[in-house]
Amino acid sequence: MNLIDFIGALAGMLTTISFIPQVLKIWRTRSARDISYGMYTCFISGVALWLCYGLLIGALPIVLNNAIVLLLAILVIMLKYRVER
Amino acid sequence: MNLIDFIGALAGMLTTISFIPQVLKIWRTRSARDISYGMYTCFISGVALWLCYGLLIGALPIVLNNAIVLLLAILVIMLKYRVER
Repeated sequence: MNLIDFIGALAGMLTTISFIPQVLKIWRTRSARDISYGMYTCFISGVALWLCYGLLIGALPIVLNNAIVLLLAILVIMLKYRVER
Repeated sequence: MNLIDFIGALAGMLTTISFIPQVLKIWRTRSARDISYGMYTCFISGVALWLCYGLLIGALPIVLNNAIVLLLAILVIMLKYRVER
């Protein structure tokens, strides 16, 4: 793996795992009032399309990263819904 | 532009603009307690690396999308810092 591939892989890993602290924060505080439904609705739609794009061009890193982000982003929105009802 | 390119472009646009509703929500409510610093620190680092990656491989769509996401994510974290002090 050359330096450019390494930077890309690290970038993908960081943006993907970044949603974990948000999931844990909502879980711990049982509060998600400041989280925007608009952001996550739009973001989840975009990530789902990235996943389709990755599948269509056969790019495994795009598929894997976006599958994980999709799950985590759906978890954020589900937790928000749950703690607010 | 073929269908696959269109899906990729739409995916990029959706994930990029998704941070706008979050910025507006914090601005409007003056509250960002539930937003995770951990998420945005990790996310901003990742997006900055995506930007480097885009520059290194000379991919303008990656550069543009990540430059905008970077600015919006920094805006989220700056607004959070500002409304909480």
